[in-house]
Amino acid sequence: MATVKLWTDEEVSANARVKAVFDDIRATRKSDFVNNFWRALASQPVLLERTWSSIKEVMIEPGTLDPLTRELIYIAASTINNCSYCVHSHTAAARAKGLTDQQYSELLAVIGMAAETNALATALQIPIDPEFSIG
Amino acid sequence: MATVKLWTDEEVSANARVKAVFDDIRATRKSDFVNNFWRALASQPVLLERTWSSIKEVMIEPGTLDPLTRELIYIAASTINNCSYCVHSHTAAARAKGLTDQQYSELLAVIGMAAETNALATALQIPIDPEFSIG
Amino acid sequence: MATVKLWTDEEVSANARVKAVFDDIRATRKSDFVNNFWRALASQPVLLERTWSSIKEVMIEPGTLDPLTRELIYIAASTINNCSYCVHSHTAAARAKGLTDQQYSELLAVIGMAAETNALATALQIPIDPEFSIG
Amino acid sequence: MATVKLWTDEEVSANARVKAVFDDIRATRKSDFVNNFWRALASQPVLLERTWSSIKEVMIEPGTLDPLTRELIYIAASTINNCSYCVHSHTAAARAKGLTDQQYSELLAVIGMAAETNALATALQIPIDPEFSIG
Amino acid sequence: MATVKLWTDEEVSANARVKAVFDDIRATRKSDFVNNFWRALASQPVLLERTWSSIKEVMIEPGTLDPLTRELIYIAASTINNCSYCVHSHTAAARAKGLTDQQYSELLAVIGMAAETNALATALQIPIDPEFSIG
Amino acid sequence: MATVKLWTDEEVSANARVKAVFDDIRATRKSDFVNNFWRALASQPVLLERTWSSIKEVMIEPGTLDPLTRELIYIAASTINNCSYCVHSHTAAARAKGLTDQQYSELLAVIGMAAETNALATALQIPIDPEFSIG
Repeated sequence: MATVKLWTDEEVSANARVKAVFDDIRATRKSDFVNNFWRALASQPVLLERTWSSIKEVMIEPGTLDPLTRELIYIAASTINNCSYCVHSHTAAARAKGLTDQQYSELLAVIGMAAETNALATALQIPIDPEFSIG
Repeated sequence: MATVKLWTDEEVSANARVKAVFDDIRATRKSDFVNNFWRALASQPVLLERTWSSIKEVMIEPGTLDPLTRELIYIAASTINNCSYCVHSHTAAARAKGLTDQQYSELLAVIGMAAETNALATALQIPIDPEFSIG
Repeated sequence: MATVKLWTDEEVSANARVKAVFDDIRATRKSDFVNNFWRALASQPVLLERTWSSIKEVMIEPGTLDPLTRELIYIAASTINNCSYCVHSHTAAARAKGLTDQQYSELLAVIGMAAETNALATALQIPIDPEFSIG
Repeated sequence: MATVKLWTDEEVSANARVKAVFDDIRATRKSDFVNNFWRALASQPVLLERTWSSIKEVMIEPGTLDPLTRELIYIAASTINNCSYCVHSHTAAARAKGLTDQQYSELLAVIGMAAETNALATALQIPIDPEFSIG
Repeated sequence: MATVKLWTDEEVSANARVKAVFDDIRATRKSDFVNNFWRALASQPVLLERTWSSIKEVMIEPGTLDPLTRELIYIAASTINNCSYCVHSHTAAARAKGLTDQQYSELLAVIGMAAETNALATALQIPIDPEFSIG
Repeated sequence: MATVKLWTDEEVSANARVKAVFDDIRATRKSDFVNNFWRALASQPVLLERTWSSIKEVMIEPGTLDPLTRELIYIAASTINNCSYCVHSHTAAARAKGLTDQQYSELLAVIGMAAETNALATALQIPIDPEFSIG
């Protein structure tokens, strides 16, 4: 159960600001499906508008990292942040963008090794090598 | 300061098991530089051997994700795990593998957006859409 | 499913130490409802007593931060710690203490921005400005 | 050491996009001091603009939560996310907005208790009470 | 719901590499029950082999820390990492290795106090005493 | 730099409540050394008293888990919470209580494996086996 109401399409249609965002989500993604994340944010239109606008800029607009790579980064961050919802939604998004089973297996291996060495480096409180300096 | 001694090259040379790992690190990376992470792990040869063997398999051996993409995933996980050492070492590694300023900027943007939406999804306790099911 | 049994009112009544804590929870909160957190802790009476005593001192006794502000801080910490149970119980508590939809929306926005800028500051390993020193 | 160069005022002045953001930071805060967070983000103008625009909207524009309360929430999130830079900058910001020693002490107590009970609830895997449902 | 298919015993039997790992899990643990963690990893045989080999070395082979102590450390890490699955599986494993209710209560108390003091030390940004140096 | 002043012995002596706690820390630990954690908490006497009282109960009073085991659990939690101060202070405490190099190596291995499998279980969103139920 969410801490807020999830808006139905009917409720969305009755609110012009929310409807404008949902229309843009559908047009941008070329799909009628709008997932629960946006239906939960609908209760706070300002936050909804700013979040969608940022997500669109960061995840969808053309750039030097391809869309699938961005999803892999998103999954890595969401896994370590332990966001079940985000792991599910971005793993589904990555699959829709062509993630293969072999790539997924390698993604999991990198996330797992990072988590392990992160813990070891923290437990050992290893000082940063001066060679890593950018100066 | 580390919680263990960082081994010097001289100390490494005096221990056959540790020396074998350091030799392989240098040969694999084609570089004489061995960073503090391995010098700290040297005190525990079994852990050193297993960690290097896994890192080599996961980060270096050929696969379907290119080496730079693996580093981006590693940086994302290390950032959310807040491992200063790992953020420094893998950002340096990514730069050595060709990371451009523009790619780095997009990486930061994705990590930041993931962190923000992870927090929102958790605060709102959003239920997972059945559409994300793999079944 | 919990890793321990959740105590029923009947079981609580049969244990004097646990009953004393439950009686105080009910009297302090002026409500007969005792949530699962306390029913799970009932298996460890020492921990139950210490935890309730601390929660009462920190969250309920008069101070300079009003009760609703304390709940907002609690929700922020619980969200980042990703404790579903705590997010649910303290969001309900905040609502019971008068949290409005507009305040909730602003709370979410602050938590989200904090999470994003936390990740950016960590990824960039930004040095602390001397101006922030308290000396 | 940061993973990027921190821009000096001279470098900022030579870049019109970055200069516009820095000018707005100074005008909005009525202070000439611009902290390292913005000097590190200056290397990525798009991210700099979006982040400042969001921070301004979330932390500075009038709302139903007063500016000090927003800082307390920010500190709570930053502490649990373990962002040293953010803890320092927002504790300084809270003090500048009037945080008293007594309020700070209560803030610490709430964050500490939240962290403790978050861990207990997670260790015990306590099921969410139906009473917390919003439906 | 998992992001991958959980392999049934029938599917395991049809894949020689996966079957070999499952056979070793059953032989090592002297039990026919193989939990979902391994059934989920079965889709990525390389990762399955490496993970089982490491777990066996770290958690099962004789050492100076007894098996129950290792489980307590595992539970502490899994709790703070907020891994529901891991908390459940390792609490069950600890019970199978003899964990008493009194020990469990003390484990919870230590994890809770660590979480609280971790948050306080981070919020206060306490400098490390030179006395803790190993040098 | 801390966000608060670290109290000197002279300042402690001038405050009866704080002095009483410091006297008890010294008597209980049979050592004149009082580390920075307590010197930072001294600014908030109520929090100082409650925290010391809890730490004494949880970490020092006799129980079924020996003092070294409690330190190992503390280190595991502090590592995953990424508390540098706590990792340093409790690793030093564990050494003072007899932690051997071999035990430390095994502790690191368990923490590292837990971190890795925690990440894998979260990334895979593995459903909890009914066999782990306590019912």
